[in-house]
Amino acid sequence: MLNYQQDSRFMAVALALSERGRGRTGNNPNVGCIIVKNGIIIGRGWTQPGGRPHAEAMALEQAGPAAAGADIYCTMEPCAHKSERGPTCTDLVIAAAPARVILATLDIDARTRRHGIDRLGEAGIAVSVGILEHQAQRVMAGFFTRMEKKRPHVTLKLALSLDGCIAMADGSSQWITGARARAHAHLERARCDAILVGSGTFEADQPRLTVRLPGLADRSPQPLVLGKTDVPDHWISIAEPTAISELDATNWLLVEGGAATAASFLQAGLVDRLLLYRAPLVIGGGLQAIGDIGLVNLDHGHDQWNRVDRRDLGKDVLEIYEHAA
Amino acid sequence: MLNYQQDSRFMAVALALSERGRGRTGNNPNVGCIIVKNGIIIGRGWTQPGGRPHAEAMALEQAGPAAAGADIYCTMEPCAHKSERGPTCTDLVIAAAPARVILATLDIDARTRRHGIDRLGEAGIAVSVGILEHQAQRVMAGFFTRMEKKRPHVTLKLALSLDGCIAMADGSSQWITGARARAHAHLERARCDAILVGSGTFEADQPRLTVRLPGLADRSPQPLVLGKTDVPDHWISIAEPTAISELDATNWLLVEGGAATAASFLQAGLVDRLLLYRAPLVIGGGLQAIGDIGLVNLDHGHDQWNRVDRRDLGKDVLEIYEHAA
Repeated sequence: MLNYQQDSRFMAVALALSERGRGRTGNNPNVGCIIVKNGIIIGRGWTQPGGRPHAEAMALEQAGPAAAGADIYCTMEPCAHKSERGPTCTDLVIAAAPARVILATLDIDARTRRHGIDRLGEAGIAVSVGILEHQAQRVMAGFFTRMEKKRPHVTLKLALSLDGCIAMADGSSQWITGARARAHAHLERARCDAILVGSGTFEADQPRLTVRLPGLADRSPQPLVLGKTDVPDHWISIAEPTAISELDATNWLLVEGGAATAASFLQAGLVDRLLLYRAPLVIGGGLQAIGDIGLVNLDHGHDQWNRVDRRDLGKDVLEIYEHAA
Repeated sequence: MLNYQQDSRFMAVALALSERGRGRTGNNPNVGCIIVKNGIIIGRGWTQPGGRPHAEAMALEQAGPAAAGADIYCTMEPCAHKSERGPTCTDLVIAAAPARVILATLDIDARTRRHGIDRLGEAGIAVSVGILEHQAQRVMAGFFTRMEKKRPHVTLKLALSLDGCIAMADGSSQWITGARARAHAHLERARCDAILVGSGTFEADQPRLTVRLPGLADRSPQPLVLGKTDVPDHWISIAEPTAISELDATNWLLVEGGAATAASFLQAGLVDRLLLYRAPLVIGGGLQAIGDIGLVNLDHGHDQWNRVDRRDLGKDVLEIYEHAA
C-alpha cells in the first residue's frame, strides 16, 4: 500500500542525509538514501566526499541481503550510465531486489534521466517519483544549477546592520553580527565547494575563508578571489563573475563580498540565493552592502526574490531568499 | 476573588480602547477604561480627542447607576488633581461606588501619582495595580515619554530595500514597499500627533504627510519640517531636533526621513522606536537610509535596540524596535 505520509517522513530522512554531502561531492549530486524494511531503517547512505561511493551503494552495503523486498528511498533517480569508477546504482538496486523504490526527483543528467526508472520498472520493481521533489531540488540545487546553467549554484552572503551597512565608514566590521550568526555563516561555508571574495576585500581584510567550527576545519572550501591581486598558492583568482562556469567540480559557491563583488554577481544574474544575517544595530553612514547593479527602474527590482526561510540566531535574524526562476 | 487571568483579559480590552486615542489626546494620556459587572461589560471609554472627556468619565456615563458594585478596569490611575475642565476621575469613580478598581499602571504625573489610589482606598474601594503594566506603558508611551523626558515620544519610520536603501541613486522611491505596508504606515501616521520630514525631503518630494486611508483623513497629524525652508501656513518648522520639546500638546511624533534627518534625531538620542518596513528587493548603490550618527565604535552600536514586533505585510516585513532604556 502506498502511504504518502509515511513516504514523506522517510524521504525527509533521506533528504537530511543528502544535506551531509553538500559542498563536497565534486561533480556529483549530493544524494541521500535509506532502505526501510518492516518500518525499520536497515541502511543509510549519502554521496561520499569526492563523489564516491554513491548514496545507494553505501546504503545497500549496510543493508546487505536484507534489502530484498525492502523499500528504498532515494533523493534522486539512481545513476544508470556506466562509469569507470564502478557499477551503476541502478544495477546495484536491481541486484538487491527491493519491493519498491521511492524517488524525490529524476536525475537531470541526460545520460541517466528516465533510464534509471525505466530499467527498475523492467526489473519488476515498483517505482514512485515526486515525493518532496521541491525540497530535494533545493537540497541538491548545486548539481541542478550546474547541469542546467553550466555554472555553480551561487549564494551571496551578507552580514548587515538594520540600515543595510556591512561595515562602518572606516571599514571596520568586527563584529556586526553575534556569535551564533557567525557560527551559522561558517556552517554555510562548510556546505560549499568554493568561496569567493573580491580583491578589495582580500587586500583589506586578508580573510582566511576557512571553516572555523570544531570538527569541521577539514571542510573549508576552495578560496577564490575576483579581480587582479596576488593570491596564495592554493587560491584561485578569476577575472570576472562569468568565469565561475570554468570551475571544476564545483556545485556550490559562496560569495562573501564586498559591495562591488556582490553587485557584479547580481548584475550578471549569477546569484541564486541571498543569505542575509541582520543585526539589531544602526551604523549610520557606513559602507553599503551592495554597489550599483544597473537597476534602472524600481519596478524591475520587484518579484525577483522570494523569502524561503527566516530564523532568529541570538539577537540577529537570518533571512534566506531565492531568486525567482 | 482576584483572578489574574480574567483581570488580564479585561485589561487587554481596556488597552485596545486606549489605542484608539493614540495621537489625538493633546497633553493627556490616551487612557482606556471598561466597567464590568457579573462578567458583562457595561461601560467603555477612552480619552476623547483633545483630551476630554476622560476615559473613566465616558465609561461611567455609559454604565450609569449600574456601576455600583462593579469592577472598573483602567489603563492608568484616575486623575486626582483639580482641573477647570471638570471633576476629577477619582471623584467620579468614588461617587459611582464600584467594588474594585483594577489599574495597569500608576499615573506618572506627580499631581495625581498615588493620590488617586490613596483616595480610592480611603473610600473603601479595593484597588489592584500592575496588571499588564508593561503593555500599558507601551500603549501610552507618548504621555510617559513627554512627562519623563519633556519631549514627545519619537518613532523613526523607514521603508527599505533588502540592502538598506530608501531610494534609488536618482532619488526615486515610489514604490519600494507594497500596498499593505504603505497602508500600515498611514495608520501609524493616524496614531501620531505630529509628523516630521527634513527640509531636503520636503523640497524634493513636496510630501503631503496626510493620512490617506478611507475614513481616517481627519486624523492627519500636524506636519513639521526640520531645517530652513518655506512651509505652507499650517506647517511648523523647527531648527533642530531638540526643538521638539517645545511642541505643544504632542505626545507622539513620527519622523519620516530622509537620511540626514533620521541621523540627526538618532545622534541626538531622540529616537524611541524604529518602524522598519523592508521590501524583498535589491536596489544596489541607492540612497542610504541613515546618515552619519557619530558612531565611533561598533561595540557602541550594540544593545541599543530591542525588537518588540515583527509581522509580514504582503511580501514586505515590518519590524518594530524600541530603544533600550
